[in-house]
Amino acid sequence: MAESWSFLDTFEPDFRPLVVIELAKGTKEETIEWFTKRIVDKKANGGAQLLVKPLVTENGNENIYLVGASHLRLLLGAESVGLVKECNDNSMRTFTYSTRKTFKDFADDNHNFLTMAECQYIIKHELENLRAKDEKMIPGYPQAKLYPGKSIVRRLLTSGILIQIFPLHDREELKKLRHSWYGRVKVGYQPLDEIRCYFGETIALYFGFLEYFTFALIPMAVIGIPYYVFAWEDYDKYVMFATFNLLWSTVILEVWKRICAIMTYRWGTLLMKRQFEEPRSGFHGVLGINPVTGREEPVYSSIKRQMRIYLVSLPFVCLCLYFSLHVMMIYFDLEQWALDYHEENESNFSSLMLFVPSIIYAVVIEIMNRIYRYAAEFLTSWENHRLESSYQNHLILKVLVFNFLNCFASLFYIAFVLVDMKLLRQSLATLLITSQILNQFAESLLPYWLQKRHKKRMKKHTCSLKTDKDLSLAGQVNLEKEMGTYFGTFDDYLELFLQFGYVSLFSCVYPLAAVFAVLNNITEIYSDALKMCRVYKRPFAEPTANIGVWQLAFETMSVISVVTNCILIGMSPQVNALFPDSKMDLILTVALVEHLLLAIKFIMAFVIPDKPRDIQIKLAKLEFESLEALKQQ
Amino acid sequence: MAESWSFLDTFEPDFRPLVVIELAKGTKEETIEWFTKRIVDKKANGGAQLLVKPLVTENGNENIYLVGASHLRLLLGAESVGLVKECNDNSMRTFTYSTRKTFKDFADDNHNFLTMAECQYIIKHELENLRAKDEKMIPGYPQAKLYPGKSIVRRLLTSGILIQIFPLHDREELKKLRHSWYGRVKVGYQPLDEIRCYFGETIALYFGFLEYFTFALIPMAVIGIPYYVFAWEDYDKYVMFATFNLLWSTVILEVWKRICAIMTYRWGTLLMKRQFEEPRSGFHGVLGINPVTGREEPVYSSIKRQMRIYLVSLPFVCLCLYFSLHVMMIYFDLEQWALDYHEENESNFSSLMLFVPSIIYAVVIEIMNRIYRYAAEFLTSWENHRLESSYQNHLILKVLVFNFLNCFASLFYIAFVLVDMKLLRQSLATLLITSQILNQFAESLLPYWLQKRHKKRMKKHTCSLKTDKDLSLAGQVNLEKEMGTYFGTFDDYLELFLQFGYVSLFSCVYPLAAVFAVLNNITEIYSDALKMCRVYKRPFAEPTANIGVWQLAFETMSVISVVTNCILIGMSPQVNALFPDSKMDLILTVALVEHLLLAIKFIMAFVIPDKPRDIQIKLAKLEFESLEALKQQ
Repeated sequence: MAESWSFLDTFEPDFRPLVVIELAKGTKEETIEWFTKRIVDKKANGGAQLLVKPLVTENGNENIYLVGASHLRLLLGAESVGLVKECNDNSMRTFTYSTRKTFKDFADDNHNFLTMAECQYIIKHELENLRAKDEKMIPGYPQAKLYPGKSIVRRLLTSGILIQIFPLHDREELKKLRHSWYGRVKVGYQPLDEIRCYFGETIALYFGFLEYFTFALIPMAVIGIPYYVFAWEDYDKYVMFATFNLLWSTVILEVWKRICAIMTYRWGTLLMKRQFEEPRSGFHGVLGINPVTGREEPVYSSIKRQMRIYLVSLPFVCLCLYFSLHVMMIYFDLEQWALDYHEENESNFSSLMLFVPSIIYAVVIEIMNRIYRYAAEFLTSWENHRLESSYQNHLILKVLVFNFLNCFASLFYIAFVLVDMKLLRQSLATLLITSQILNQFAESLLPYWLQKRHKKRMKKHTCSLKTDKDLSLAGQVNLEKEMGTYFGTFDDYLELFLQFGYVSLFSCVYPLAAVFAVLNNITEIYSDALKMCRVYKRPFAEPTANIGVWQLAFETMSVISVVTNCILIGMSPQVNALFPDSKMDLILTVALVEHLLLAIKFIMAFVIPDKPRDIQIKLAKLEFESLEALKQQ
Repeated sequence: MAESWSFLDTFEPDFRPLVVIELAKGTKEETIEWFTKRIVDKKANGGAQLLVKPLVTENGNENIYLVGASHLRLLLGAESVGLVKECNDNSMRTFTYSTRKTFKDFADDNHNFLTMAECQYIIKHELENLRAKDEKMIPGYPQAKLYPGKSIVRRLLTSGILIQIFPLHDREELKKLRHSWYGRVKVGYQPLDEIRCYFGETIALYFGFLEYFTFALIPMAVIGIPYYVFAWEDYDKYVMFATFNLLWSTVILEVWKRICAIMTYRWGTLLMKRQFEEPRSGFHGVLGINPVTGREEPVYSSIKRQMRIYLVSLPFVCLCLYFSLHVMMIYFDLEQWALDYHEENESNFSSLMLFVPSIIYAVVIEIMNRIYRYAAEFLTSWENHRLESSYQNHLILKVLVFNFLNCFASLFYIAFVLVDMKLLRQSLATLLITSQILNQFAESLLPYWLQKRHKKRMKKHTCSLKTDKDLSLAGQVNLEKEMGTYFGTFDDYLELFLQFGYVSLFSCVYPLAAVFAVLNNITEIYSDALKMCRVYKRPFAEPTANIGVWQLAFETMSVISVVTNCILIGMSPQVNALFPDSKMDLILTVALVEHLLLAIKFIMAFVIPDKPRDIQIKLAKLEFESLEALKQQ
């Protein structure tokens, strides 16, 4: 290893820009010099040993820097992030520089062995792990304190010197991807492997899940249509539909785990080890020794973290939930008051007043959502999780619970307190359809249109210049740095999660929900693809082995649906008519059926293995080999 | 490795007998010669490379053979079974011969590095993995067919040539163990580490669980006593007691996992890999290549196994359960009939008749239990599981479900169909106490008495002989070979499981159950210890990392208890009095509370980590090292 690093002293002649660093205008020279020196400095000196080149545009140096790396440096970086690649014998193994010859498609002159997304991920990883040594502050900025082990990039970002870091698009590749993804009207699957090569595993897995989920909803939609067409209202048909839905949702969630394992095994991320993850860039603590790896890194007491989670975050979340419920109750009171007012003095003003509570409520919800989201991010960051995945899971859990309540509390109230099935069906349909339309518009089409306008303006600017290759790069960088930032798959999953709630929680009241969900998801695939390719900056690839806490969220939702559907069926007049004498028998029957369904669900989840047999065998084989290797030592 | 094996050519001068093989009287000479040759033959020739010596008694050779092994052979065997030992740096590592110097207490002349139980386990493992090569049959027994890969010992056992294989007791060690275990009256913990050294991990873990469970029941017992003393019948006190019980049982089961991880990490079995287990001796199939290890071994299609499980075993079990319920209904009918008969013509005969249904039912249950147990063993063996652990889990699951129904179905019937709480309390107390007394008597005291009588008779026989050392060994072997065989911890766990059912399922009706359970378990520890040390043959040690499917069984029981307790509280007259107008409100409240309790249980199980943090770190460290080792390759 030590030997290989020394090869890097020579400067690479063909510099390929991969990542863009934008510094604030007016950043002091000494800071820039120090920062770029750290980036290019040798590993042994605490540098990242990457290549840096300032971007020169017609306006001179705009404090934009392009970062690249030699092929060798990238291979060594691939080893240090623990990339898993396919070997010549078709097994998946952790890449190491010394065993590079055993990997499929490896050749010393094959610069496509690592995908561009992987190269950019490596560079991001190396930049984020540039840590302060004995510097007490960022040179030139005495207020930006540093201490040993502090991530330099993180401090530069928080002190506003570093505006952003983002990976460059590859126009050729993007064009090809766009064509095979949504360029032609076709029936078929998305090119998930190509998406993964370009955008990384997290995003590819989201699109994989979206596609899978859409297919999985089709049976529900098909069965739901006749209920609408023939206006079936028989209790037995509803019971059948709901039972099918509940068991089906268990099956699809279990099968997804298997499909996910197959995909991530092929991508190598199923084998990437979590515990060897470097601490996330926001993680801080006293410099100590990691007990697992024996390496020096910041250490933070897990008891302190637990205390913060359980003594501060948890009570705060509960308080917010209570507050949100309180606001909902006020809304229902206001609504009642408006109705009464309208009945008493019927006028144009009073009928206008009918809409006021809903509007106020919608606005308040939106404000609360934003404040809560901000607070949740602050709290989760303050909890100081060592791993990015752990941070994400805690953040998702917080936001999820709140959103669940905000979206469904009013429906629950209508269903189980007001007991008004007509109103429930109507609210459900309105909420589902409007949220879908608004989402697609606000999420993709509007930004796409804004982006297009901006691009046109930019083109006008630059078309006066000669189309030199270097200048076209400058143009690309300037264009991309103004594009919006994609903040991860969080909101996309949240949308699907809430949709799943609309479909399954009250499925026996509104069987048509699945039909709308399928239709929405088909266009969602296209609008999300458009969003990824055209609207946003290219995001950094993020390796992942599964959809993480979302799996749990969907499973919990499907358990809650069993309860809600059983209650809804129990309340339906048709079922009530079956037990004319005794309400008690009815409730007991419903409770019995509910427990049976829950038991079946758990048994099914237990019996269906999470990984297909061949993946299990491959994993066992790898573990066996690694143990044998340890024996040989 | 190849080199080390060649050292074994020289015969060890100090032969230490570890395992006894008893062949049938009149076994043909050629068979004995072939079998012993295979045992001592070199590994390369398909032998086990162990040492064998016939036991010579005053009656001449009785076809009893003592098996031992050289120290070196045992160390190599320890490597091949994957034993995990403590290193000099206090970490636990898989033992290998080449790294032997790094292990704690290792010295070439320290023959106590491996415990006697480990040595015996190694020898058993090697004997069971003696597999047929090109033999078509056992020499001398043309009807005992062999095929490549068939375990020779298994075929010898099934064809009746081999009567038994068992490990010898170590009288000195046993004396010490007995003394520290139950020899003196003391307050304190059991010597679990010593038990583990002598009897192996499975048995030590059972005693560890028994002890832990007893301590865990004490709070329930303490809280339960005032209910009996002051005859509390207030609903709120019952609700409190039941709620405490339900949450407490979740906590104790979660904490047990952590304690179990701490113990088995110390014993090294937490790190032993399941997938590298050799196939169990009963496993058969076509000789093929194991996809994980690449070694030649019998292979059996997992689809065929699944078919056998779901298409034959599952329907059979369901049928048996149905039949058992049917028998119970007949019993209740008979009971009613006897009662009616007694009321009509009151006489001595009729009052005698009152007992007849119970007696018939008890006998039928016992017969059914035995037949079912036999069928379950046959079916599970026929399912052809590759691993012993998987075989055990499937067997346990089958027997468990049936026993659960047999034990509790009548109580459920009394509680929820007859709704007679007095009768329920009475039946519960009778069942619990009589089953505890009977169990302790039938399981330990009776066998102990029989064993003592037998020993006396044997002593009379042998005391006429001179007390030569070799002859005292012969006496010991003759004594031990007549002792009963301990068939594993299954029945002991089953007893605890049913006890847990009595304590938790109806805890709000009979709070005193926990008191009886604690009292029973304290004596159970002593009687089980007596049973292990005095009554049975020494069992082979069996490494295990946890209590396996029993954990799941106990957890399922605690979920079922939430349901039963909520229903019982809902049915109590005190709670009914709170809802005088509306039964419906009562049931809805009960259902709500039940769901809340279940939700809390699941959240608690999710939040409490299964392994303590330091064990997690140690495991992660080992995994990290093994991955680093793979990289070095």
